[in-house]
Amino acid sequence: MSKENLVVIGGKNCGELAKRVAEKLGGKYIQLFVRKFPDGEVYIRLPESIEGDISILFSCLGNRPNEGLVETVFALKSLEDYGAEKHILVIPYMPYARQDEVFSFGEVVSIKILDKIFRTFGVDALVTVDMHLHRFKTINEVFRFKAINTTVVPELARYVAEVYGNDVQIVAPDEEAEQWAKIASKEIGSDYIVLEKIRHGDEHVEISGLKEVKEKVLIIDDIISTGTTIAETAKLARQLGAKTIVVACAHALLVGDAEGKIFNSGVVELVASDTINNPYAKVSSTNAIVRGLKEVI
Amino acid sequence: MSKENLVVIGGKNCGELAKRVAEKLGGKYIQLFVRKFPDGEVYIRLPESIEGDISILFSCLGNRPNEGLVETVFALKSLEDYGAEKHILVIPYMPYARQDEVFSFGEVVSIKILDKIFRTFGVDALVTVDMHLHRFKTINEVFRFKAINTTVVPELARYVAEVYGNDVQIVAPDEEAEQWAKIASKEIGSDYIVLEKIRHGDEHVEISGLKEVKEKVLIIDDIISTGTTIAETAKLARQLGAKTIVVACAHALLVGDAEGKIFNSGVVELVASDTINNPYAKVSSTNAIVRGLKEVI
Amino acid sequence: MSKENLVVIGGKNCGELAKRVAEKLGGKYIQLFVRKFPDGEVYIRLPESIEGDISILFSCLGNRPNEGLVETVFALKSLEDYGAEKHILVIPYMPYARQDEVFSFGEVVSIKILDKIFRTFGVDALVTVDMHLHRFKTINEVFRFKAINTTVVPELARYVAEVYGNDVQIVAPDEEAEQWAKIASKEIGSDYIVLEKIRHGDEHVEISGLKEVKEKVLIIDDIISTGTTIAETAKLARQLGAKTIVVACAHALLVGDAEGKIFNSGVVELVASDTINNPYAKVSSTNAIVRGLKEVI
Amino acid sequence: MSKENLVVIGGKNCGELAKRVAEKLGGKYIQLFVRKFPDGEVYIRLPESIEGDISILFSCLGNRPNEGLVETVFALKSLEDYGAEKHILVIPYMPYARQDEVFSFGEVVSIKILDKIFRTFGVDALVTVDMHLHRFKTINEVFRFKAINTTVVPELARYVAEVYGNDVQIVAPDEEAEQWAKIASKEIGSDYIVLEKIRHGDEHVEISGLKEVKEKVLIIDDIISTGTTIAETAKLARQLGAKTIVVACAHALLVGDAEGKIFNSGVVELVASDTINNPYAKVSSTNAIVRGLKEVI
Repeated sequence: MSKENLVVIGGKNCGELAKRVAEKLGGKYIQLFVRKFPDGEVYIRLPESIEGDISILFSCLGNRPNEGLVETVFALKSLEDYGAEKHILVIPYMPYARQDEVFSFGEVVSIKILDKIFRTFGVDALVTVDMHLHRFKTINEVFRFKAINTTVVPELARYVAEVYGNDVQIVAPDEEAEQWAKIASKEIGSDYIVLEKIRHGDEHVEISGLKEVKEKVLIIDDIISTGTTIAETAKLARQLGAKTIVVACAHALLVGDAEGKIFNSGVVELVASDTINNPYAKVSSTNAIVRGLKEVI
Repeated sequence: MSKENLVVIGGKNCGELAKRVAEKLGGKYIQLFVRKFPDGEVYIRLPESIEGDISILFSCLGNRPNEGLVETVFALKSLEDYGAEKHILVIPYMPYARQDEVFSFGEVVSIKILDKIFRTFGVDALVTVDMHLHRFKTINEVFRFKAINTTVVPELARYVAEVYGNDVQIVAPDEEAEQWAKIASKEIGSDYIVLEKIRHGDEHVEISGLKEVKEKVLIIDDIISTGTTIAETAKLARQLGAKTIVVACAHALLVGDAEGKIFNSGVVELVASDTINNPYAKVSSTNAIVRGLKEVI
Repeated sequence: MSKENLVVIGGKNCGELAKRVAEKLGGKYIQLFVRKFPDGEVYIRLPESIEGDISILFSCLGNRPNEGLVETVFALKSLEDYGAEKHILVIPYMPYARQDEVFSFGEVVSIKILDKIFRTFGVDALVTVDMHLHRFKTINEVFRFKAINTTVVPELARYVAEVYGNDVQIVAPDEEAEQWAKIASKEIGSDYIVLEKIRHGDEHVEISGLKEVKEKVLIIDDIISTGTTIAETAKLARQLGAKTIVVACAHALLVGDAEGKIFNSGVVELVASDTINNPYAKVSSTNAIVRGLKEVI
Repeated sequence: MSKENLVVIGGKNCGELAKRVAEKLGGKYIQLFVRKFPDGEVYIRLPESIEGDISILFSCLGNRPNEGLVETVFALKSLEDYGAEKHILVIPYMPYARQDEVFSFGEVVSIKILDKIFRTFGVDALVTVDMHLHRFKTINEVFRFKAINTTVVPELARYVAEVYGNDVQIVAPDEEAEQWAKIASKEIGSDYIVLEKIRHGDEHVEISGLKEVKEKVLIIDDIISTGTTIAETAKLARQLGAKTIVVACAHALLVGDAEGKIFNSGVVELVASDTINNPYAKVSSTNAIVRGLKEVI
């Protein structure tokens, strides 16, 4: 890896994160021009040539997956047109990862469609953070080019341990979250427990499997969307006597009334990363992304 | 063409138009399931198999180009997965057609990117209505598969002639609009004149070249976006003594304060088609689309 | 009523409807300038003075209730500042009407808050179309100024009778819809039946009470939002042997996958009014609004 | 002031900031339930009674002014209905403050309309941060109840001085920004200079008046919207030899292509506060708001 010819290009809402990564890697930083016309059309412009260089394009897609994907495709085309030799795509939060299987007749596996689009537009390698993997066991089953799924969970766990100590009980609200609880547990040396979730429709879940709790509880998950799962888990922990309930997640989508559900269920603090722009981004994914990039550059 | 195995699939906001076309063609009609999750992700489901059939997918992309393109790509994949042999795409209003040239360094030709996406996802033929063609002279320079650019302008012109008579002066506000004025003129036998437009920024245009007007004026264009061009043209016509100013367009995007500009400049009626959902859709593009489809089925 | 000094002001998306009403009433028509800045702020401007006049402001609030309410309040202030003596507000679709009771501790009765806002900004009279009234029995329990709740249901019923004949069985999917079924029944002389709805969460309903059906069924409701109620009713009708199922509503909000649910449940046609801009607006509320206005001018 | 009965209620997107303020004040924290239905209607619920208490409602209105205002009004009503005796409203970023004068016939002074709405719904006192005041000289000319305009500029200036030293030249891009430059200058002891801005339309400005610059420049403003003003100022500073250009603002709206303009004009860092949720929120407005609240409790 020759650092001289690394160019990091920041897409919309990605400037701060992309700049920090560029600094850590010793690469040049360029901010993509991105505009949205009043009729919804996206316009992008690469402000300068990057001929012969390795380009690292940052696309921040949280809460704007469709507009963001179109921006990404246009930007990839500009990298091709204006000279980059190698295209690395960084998507801190990967949308459509939960549409990973055909559950009913007539559905499509959306995340595989993203793979096809990225290949069509010349992506050589991809780095993403804590991508939701459930039916696909590894990111390499999803993307048919070099792809790294890095993690910000160690940083999240350390933040919590620094503020609340490491005598916390780590709780994964469901089986899918076990992978993140395991990483946190390894990082700060606290035990974890995996609960069971039964889903009744979009907005109703039932959590069980928690018999006793420590005084301090850390609920961990990859994505917080409506907040229902977290809120139900927190209520259960509080009923069992937990005094301090902290929640950590990589990706704080926080749709609808997520904040209301979470904070009124007894949670004292929400700790998220900056993969998605959100008010709880107390931990940066900069280092996680740098680690991932070092494997593909 | 064997009509028996034609299946028309209506995407979001397209049901009414797609159903009418299905009836005219004697094909079966299916409505695509399309949902948007609160985090912005699109979900589609094809409700039934269409094995061995010719599929005609309607995608209505006005004012939601990015979400609509993702929906279109997902739907095309479902057609492939669930058995259609031939994929025809109908996009009544084609977005991104005005991004048809590299004006400044670092830009991309967005409409050519759409061509690439459609080819990647197996489109065999495309029908669109009054697509904005300026630097590209024909639709076949844009799309590298069979593509038909049909027109609703004859229907628009006839509507105006029926209500206001055909003693109207047809006005194209600029050179690009001449093509539509010519079609209208041929349809109802009235003369047309082409004006000159100088653009000063996004929101300011200067129209000139109109020396005298008839009592009734029909201003015609393909797309009405901010309404500035139309309003300036109408003001000029009114200054020169026009009594009744009618505006016709295929695609009424009507962004920002378009209605305010248009109706306060002296326009008495706006006539648009139904390629985009809008309150002025007095003329249907059903017949235009049927004409186009007959060339590709 | 002296028609000379009537001024009808059309807000955003309301131009076509407001113009038609102005013509029928013999009043002057003005289009309000309405712009939305990229940061979401609304800007309005009244293009000319209306001193000493009766002003009739049209506010179209379907699918944009909050932005629309801010626009309405700003417009009402401009009417006061620039000279109107009497302020009549026309809201073809009244949002927040379903938030008409405190169901749980901590809630507010949103529609009563709208009443307070309208009174604060000088509304003298209000005309709305087929407002959802459930816990409030009449519109006068909601608004503490002269308010008329007019109806477009006779026009909807006549449209259906003209296309499909009047040998249709009118179906109200639930008790709340009985009022609309009754009006339709009276208009076209067909019988109606009222079904029972049990709601399980936002997206799941159970319809019962339909024992036998005629060949042609007309399902009628005031608002179609997610389409779930209509789709379940249509499925039941089809199971019982209905051949032609038509749906009519005043207000087609059509959120989420409403079209998919409705047309894949066996419905052949959806007929809506133009109180909300939608592709199924086959019936105009012009006459209904004119009838309402004549009671308050 | 008796701290025991202080209740801080956090609205949507405000949880983190409101919680911190509650902790500093020793008050109780409640998160408002806020949901948005798919048709755009806002729903709020106060999760518990606050009888006899002083309520401090946080409303975060950046980039969602209309939805946020409706949420605010509904929440104020719930505070009245469920027992608060004194209503204090905290609006970290005040929208509509730039619509502070009638520039053309037919306009309204939007910010005065907000005053009327807040009074109608019982606001006793208001705290806001770095509100844009131009034609109104003080916040008390705008709001006819106790209102405090606190500032986060000292914290912004200190952040910059800590990272870059205080040998920076503070630059106000225009006369309106002088007030912020003055505060920053006083805080860190560096000189400031005020430039001249001529505006040509929404997207084009001309900056002049900068003759020579230090090596390090701090451009300061209250609001960054499209970023055009900042970018033009930075370009001028760079032309004159500035090596390190930092930008600080209280409110980072960052609409359209603001990031592209700013970072490609030579700016090395953007420092904003957390009054609006944004990726550059490196300084918290917690202390500024606490200072403001202490004047009104």
